[in-house]
Amino acid sequence: MTAPVGARVWVVPGGHVPFPAHGTEPEFTGFDQLCVLNAGGDDAALTLDLYYEDAEPVGPYRILVAARRIRHVRVNDLIDPEAVRLDRPYGCVLRSPVPVVVQFLRQDTRLPGVVALTGTMAYPG
Amino acid sequence: MTAPVGARVWVVPGGHVPFPAHGTEPEFTGFDQLCVLNAGGDDAALTLDLYYEDAEPVGPYRILVAARRIRHVRVNDLIDPEAVRLDRPYGCVLRSPVPVVVQFLRQDTRLPGVVALTGTMAYPG
Amino acid sequence: MTAPVGARVWVVPGGHVPFPAHGTEPEFTGFDQLCVLNAGGDDAALTLDLYYEDAEPVGPYRILVAARRIRHVRVNDLIDPEAVRLDRPYGCVLRSPVPVVVQFLRQDTRLPGVVALTGTMAYPG
Amino acid sequence: MTAPVGARVWVVPGGHVPFPAHGTEPEFTGFDQLCVLNAGGDDAALTLDLYYEDAEPVGPYRILVAARRIRHVRVNDLIDPEAVRLDRPYGCVLRSPVPVVVQFLRQDTRLPGVVALTGTMAYPG
Repeated sequence: MTAPVGARVWVVPGGHVPFPAHGTEPEFTGFDQLCVLNAGGDDAALTLDLYYEDAEPVGPYRILVAARRIRHVRVNDLIDPEAVRLDRPYGCVLRSPVPVVVQFLRQDTRLPGVVALTGTMAYPG
Repeated sequence: MTAPVGARVWVVPGGHVPFPAHGTEPEFTGFDQLCVLNAGGDDAALTLDLYYEDAEPVGPYRILVAARRIRHVRVNDLIDPEAVRLDRPYGCVLRSPVPVVVQFLRQDTRLPGVVALTGTMAYPG
Repeated sequence: MTAPVGARVWVVPGGHVPFPAHGTEPEFTGFDQLCVLNAGGDDAALTLDLYYEDAEPVGPYRILVAARRIRHVRVNDLIDPEAVRLDRPYGCVLRSPVPVVVQFLRQDTRLPGVVALTGTMAYPG
Repeated sequence: MTAPVGARVWVVPGGHVPFPAHGTEPEFTGFDQLCVLNAGGDDAALTLDLYYEDAEPVGPYRILVAARRIRHVRVNDLIDPEAVRLDRPYGCVLRSPVPVVVQFLRQDTRLPGVVALTGTMAYPG
């Protein structure tokens, strides 16, 4: 179960954390999520850079995914080097020293009593 | 119709079986599903390993997909070697001795009277 | 605008036409859809084979996509060599003599007043 | 943060701007969106060609994505060389002089009080 699989660069162009949200937290909070699987035997210290329409990229954000573990990171929870503004279009590039696999998921609860989901595998660079 | 097509390793980082569910079973049960197509002439005895945020991987789960057949497996129905806990983030790696193709689908019925779907092709390792 | 782009084999493992449907037809009919783009200068006579959990594959279904055209085919509209049963899991393999690109889309209207969508690029074999 | 990543040709076969829409604009307008990330150090002057079921392709539409920037373009906002008709199936091919990454997203608000989302990474040609 410890063979590395995946790629070292992953890209998601279509980020946009839905805002506002309706429903109980944290289950129905609106979010964009980056889901990382590190199947290998070495911990992965990922760096994440965020790209915007009208400003220079911000980063690196640091995400640690231990060996043989997953991590599901809500983009809205990232605060260092700077909090991610909700309802602002962005894209991102993740870089890993070892192969990992990255999936993108959005949960949209802007309308009361409705949940919408969308997602895709990220693009391996 | 019997030429093999696909890859031998497939990865889904973003698993999370929605819980609870509303509506009649089994149509509106919340689920994560792995959809496998084996277009080749040989049966495929797949192994599935589940990865978690805070525990060692669990597996192998065994999934048989006969030659020239599909199989749609609900992750919540897997019980051997251990039942998959609902509402717990996971990722998974499928390995097949012959080429197959794997698609991931989620059905979310946590809100009464609402169904949300999302999915993606799995990542071919 | 006429350079061919894409692949000659495309796979969708996770087919399942939602049933029943609610809302006006044809806009809110439940469907699985195969969307084909043929950017090249030659017409593409595609063949489609459907795979099932418990029966031999059925096909070929024939789909013509003219040069420099798209075609969005609802799987539920396929009738030759045999009608596709609703609410039955299936997978499919499309083969084209020239490069094309194939995207899969599902519209689910099983619940009154709700529409759910999901989709993914098909897997290029 | 300035290494180029991606491909120069991207394809989306399954376009169809949902119509009509319900809810406040612009948040709940129905749309198809092309999300482009240009991680490199050179501006990217993209061309977009639209393909139809029953007419010759239309284009090029021109989309500029500056170096180290993203751009999320609603297909329904494209007007030159000709406005995109809502509720008409289409596909598209984007071409870029430098590597970029492209993601497709649809927001469907045809039913009052409901939002449905779907999307996928575009296909790198």
